Amino acid sequence: MISAPTGSFHRHETVHWGDCDAAGIVFYPNFYRWADNSFHALTRALGFDQASLSADHGILGTPLVETSARFAAPARPGDRLDIAVRITRIGRSSCALHYAMALDGRAVADVQEARVFVRQTGTQLAPCAIPDAIRAAMAPHFVTS
Amino acid sequence: MISAPTGSFHRHETVHWGDCDAAGIVFYPNFYRWADNSFHALTRALGFDQASLSADHGILGTPLVETSARFAAPARPGDRLDIAVRITRIGRSSCALHYAMALDGRAVADVQEARVFVRQTGTQLAPCAIPDAIRAAMAPHFVTS
Amino acid sequence: MISAPTGSFHRHETVHWGDCDAAGIVFYPNFYRWADNSFHALTRALGFDQASLSADHGILGTPLVETSARFAAPARPGDRLDIAVRITRIGRSSCALHYAMALDGRAVADVQEARVFVRQTGTQLAPCAIPDAIRAAMAPHFVTS
Amino acid sequence: MISAPTGSFHRHETVHWGDCDAAGIVFYPNFYRWADNSFHALTRALGFDQASLSADHGILGTPLVETSARFAAPARPGDRLDIAVRITRIGRSSCALHYAMALDGRAVADVQEARVFVRQTGTQLAPCAIPDAIRAAMAPHFVTS
Repeated sequence: MISAPTGSFHRHETVHWGDCDAAGIVFYPNFYRWADNSFHALTRALGFDQASLSADHGILGTPLVETSARFAAPARPGDRLDIAVRITRIGRSSCALHYAMALDGRAVADVQEARVFVRQTGTQLAPCAIPDAIRAAMAPHFVTS
Repeated sequence: MISAPTGSFHRHETVHWGDCDAAGIVFYPNFYRWADNSFHALTRALGFDQASLSADHGILGTPLVETSARFAAPARPGDRLDIAVRITRIGRSSCALHYAMALDGRAVADVQEARVFVRQTGTQLAPCAIPDAIRAAMAPHFVTS
Repeated sequence: MISAPTGSFHRHETVHWGDCDAAGIVFYPNFYRWADNSFHALTRALGFDQASLSADHGILGTPLVETSARFAAPARPGDRLDIAVRITRIGRSSCALHYAMALDGRAVADVQEARVFVRQTGTQLAPCAIPDAIRAAMAPHFVTS
Repeated sequence: MISAPTGSFHRHETVHWGDCDAAGIVFYPNFYRWADNSFHALTRALGFDQASLSADHGILGTPLVETSARFAAPARPGDRLDIAVRITRIGRSSCALHYAMALDGRAVADVQEARVFVRQTGTQLAPCAIPDAIRAAMAPHFVTS
């Protein structure tokens, strides 16, 4: 069921001609691209982005540890996907997100991401604690169920 | 451990400048694109592709039911990834694949895909049995462990 | 100068994190992707799309003959581009389009496309006359200067 | 005519399933992506890349001023494109490149790029002189006709 629980953040992506493959349906890596777009849109809505994470907190970025997706129905050019974003876990240095993508109230794809906040030392990336201000900004979108 | 078990199929992808994000590391949906590229390269090596599936068997395509990935280390422009492809399940109408991506023998990313063979009826996609000839072609790359 | 002449069609694209390269600015093929997105958005606004061109007129598509772009200023994650689309030529079987992309009224990129309407015979693509209904739909967005 | 003049640099790109649109032919921004891939492959072959330009010369990158392409024939999944790269101009701070893309000796696409070497001051990008070592490395691939 596609719902909009308290705390979820909504945005849209339109499926474009170039997002589809020769079978006429979305080439699946694009669903992950739309999840990533939605993560960054959420953080901007919460008052931070990758540039401010770097400038204010010395954080290189929030790369992925793990992602997964289930695909329920095909989407085609012109379809306008509703994407509901929820933060499903906030750990010491990592967090998890869930993106429910639907078309006219019908599930199309479900994407999950686990991300880690990292600093760079040389060419190495090391996990670092999520800054308190960032943690506080994310909390309202942390939905447990 | 990155190994090359009997039955695995190998190919390479070079990480290009445009595959990386502003943190200088691969934008993660590209790992899924490289998995998909590898699936199609495997089927061509086995003697079929999406065009012949359609022409010879009336199959619209092999869309994804489920995918997932774990990311072990970042990859950067100029890196040449070794991709070992294994078929990990062959069912009645679906199959699963595993893509181990490594750089100089060190794991970078692991991608899993579950695909279903479908026919189109109207705008609906319905699972169909994997044709015997296709099943036979895939068998040598079916690696259980 | 960024203007909105009579007949131009406007839409927006937000620059996402994954659209940018390691220098932190848009990876340039994305500007062409946004032009193509805008072409298809325009045709949908005019009442047709690639699916209806095929179903109603036997037209395979509207591939590119020639494209070009000039880049005036970099764009970065979070930037919201205004895209003004004009049809600059309507020939027998081809047309040309101009996409002026701007950020806060300042030019970022200018893209030009020349497209041809084609039918498929075997694996060959052959130009065909633009159907009268399509020509009539496009006319209001044909801006000569 | 597709030729291989003295000084041209060759590489290949395979057209993948996900590079094609619903008409079954390459989605055209990918030709520009392959041109960009080829530029970076050329510079690596010449002994430099974006990372060394930054580390050794304080150069942020080599963004595009202008690009264009003519498309002669469609390309489809599985096609292996031969790409011949020539440097067609080396100015004070900019250079131009030509990418002739062919399939089995038949022209598919021709891409042109004009690039400028830039430094960053604040959020501004300013042209800078091409370093002598870089100019010397590029010279052998400078082909006037």
